[in-house]
Amino acid sequence: MKLLTETINTIPTCDEGARRRARDRLERLTMPYWALGRLMDLAEDLAGMTGRTPPPATRKTVAVMAADHGIAARGVSLYPRDVTMQMVHNFVRGGAGINVLARLAGARVVVVDMGVAGDLGALVRTGKIRDGKVAPGTRDMTEGPAMTREEAVKSIETGIRIARDLAQTTDVFATGEMGIGNTAPSSAIVALYARAEVADVTGRGTGVSDDRLLHKIKMIEKALAVNAPAPDDPIGVLSGVGGFEIGGIAGLILGAASLRKPVLVDGFISTAGALIAAALAPRSRDYMIASHRSMEKGHRIALNALGLKPLLDLDLRLGEGTGAALAMPLVDAAVAILSEVATFEEANVSQAKP
Amino acid sequence: MKLLTETINTIPTCDEGARRRARDRLERLTMPYWALGRLMDLAEDLAGMTGRTPPPATRKTVAVMAADHGIAARGVSLYPRDVTMQMVHNFVRGGAGINVLARLAGARVVVVDMGVAGDLGALVRTGKIRDGKVAPGTRDMTEGPAMTREEAVKSIETGIRIARDLAQTTDVFATGEMGIGNTAPSSAIVALYARAEVADVTGRGTGVSDDRLLHKIKMIEKALAVNAPAPDDPIGVLSGVGGFEIGGIAGLILGAASLRKPVLVDGFISTAGALIAAALAPRSRDYMIASHRSMEKGHRIALNALGLKPLLDLDLRLGEGTGAALAMPLVDAAVAILSEVATFEEANVSQAKP
Repeated sequence: MKLLTETINTIPTCDEGARRRARDRLERLTMPYWALGRLMDLAEDLAGMTGRTPPPATRKTVAVMAADHGIAARGVSLYPRDVTMQMVHNFVRGGAGINVLARLAGARVVVVDMGVAGDLGALVRTGKIRDGKVAPGTRDMTEGPAMTREEAVKSIETGIRIARDLAQTTDVFATGEMGIGNTAPSSAIVALYARAEVADVTGRGTGVSDDRLLHKIKMIEKALAVNAPAPDDPIGVLSGVGGFEIGGIAGLILGAASLRKPVLVDGFISTAGALIAAALAPRSRDYMIASHRSMEKGHRIALNALGLKPLLDLDLRLGEGTGAALAMPLVDAAVAILSEVATFEEANVSQAKP
Repeated sequence: MKLLTETINTIPTCDEGARRRARDRLERLTMPYWALGRLMDLAEDLAGMTGRTPPPATRKTVAVMAADHGIAARGVSLYPRDVTMQMVHNFVRGGAGINVLARLAGARVVVVDMGVAGDLGALVRTGKIRDGKVAPGTRDMTEGPAMTREEAVKSIETGIRIARDLAQTTDVFATGEMGIGNTAPSSAIVALYARAEVADVTGRGTGVSDDRLLHKIKMIEKALAVNAPAPDDPIGVLSGVGGFEIGGIAGLILGAASLRKPVLVDGFISTAGALIAAALAPRSRDYMIASHRSMEKGHRIALNALGLKPLLDLDLRLGEGTGAALAMPLVDAAVAILSEVATFEEANVSQAKP
């Protein structure tokens, strides 16, 4: 708990001076006022987060947090639980969506076993993935807490440690995840923090049928009734209805924020992690960039609850960090606009005559 | 007129076989069904356009068409007309938004003088820009046709020639433009083809005040009344209320489509050019990719009239091809997903059990 408390207490406010310097230059670029819209907002935000103008954003890392879920046994996903472990192997071999999109974006993929129900020791020993295993999968949240409070804290602190460790070689972080069944705990968390009905924030995940969707909603409602988590106790929320990868994502965001590193938040599950982070440390929101709005029902509500506006809206519903990787070229573009476009004075172009 | 007719007549239908092969692989990738949404739609579309799976999309060229407008003398822009020529120099020096964003995307920028009111001969002679000058700016469309029918055809055929010439070294084209005053003719064209009120498709362009916006609307209404162009006569529309760069964009799209090359359509002015292209050759629409929805009022209506759904929505209102350049990484991502992500069989991952 010491690392978590210390991290929360050291998240700085954004640097208004750096924001102002960025804005001052952006307003003088050879184009109509703020004509690159949200790209310019992003450049200004990145300056505020990092405290530098232009903000450093070259080295990017996607942390893909993998874990299993007791609720998966309740038939909330189209895929068998083994797929979590199989996909970890796919990540290591470089054949998954996130590998391809991270490669294109020039980002590194770091896979973390936060709680996969299976032996990944060989991949840990050969340095192909990082070990952050809290336990081999959560317990079934419809019958009691998914994890203990101690495990909840441990999952978050593991995320913080990963952020601290990778920060040496990372300018911009991205969240990613893999975990069969993990839209269910995410919907539970979003329902709590957005004060929404479960049915309004529960989608088809991997693509379940109407019948299974109704069943999934009932399971989530049961988990919330059984555990009765209180939104003002985020550790209680995570232990009651969370997941180890969701805790890891929350920790990664808190750790990154404490070090002034921007974080591209991926899709629905990542946003559930971001809600836990924001509940623990409201200031951490200032370091979050919503990369996209996914197709998963409830993501819009979750982003609204955080006050974040997504950069992309491409009907994605994959996770893994793929939406965050797709938004990386926009981060590069924002920085390049700020540092490379000529001002009216530099280019000798006439200014507006209002 | 011969080149134009011949080009229109040689635009092929999309290749359904290549589309099917792309779809077949996309459906077997290690992810829930179609989980990368619009990226997968785009991959399928690119296969259909190019007739190849995976579609070639490495070499990208932004053609930035520059021209001046008689209507600019009527106070429809915040900027003096000289800015068109000044910005051409800025493009050549590499200091404009499009230079920076094209560089990031690995795209080449080709600047074409379609009708700038000034002497750009030195830049043409040194090979820094291409000469396609139809005339030194259009005439004031509020007093008669902006150009003759012959000039309209010439501007389109110049665009076709540029496409043919660049096609040797281009897999994917992007449209761009520069021309003080050019949102006014674009609004006139969009009003005609979308059968919309001028006030509903006329925005602030570079950022004019409320008063000037009302004045701009009146000028466009006057131009439409004076010239009375008929939508089923696209050459008449372009000559009555168009611009040389708008004709050049229409030609670039037609030329690219005739050669099976996809075209990223930029913002509002580019979409006006696309409407002219679609009116001349409806099949050319199959080769258009709407890169973004701009902030300019009327762009949504214009894209709807073409039946195109934009990839990005970032409150841009710059033009130059900047939105098209920002969408290029999505084209790369679509192709990479198709060619690099492992299938369930390849990765030995269990499939869904519905």
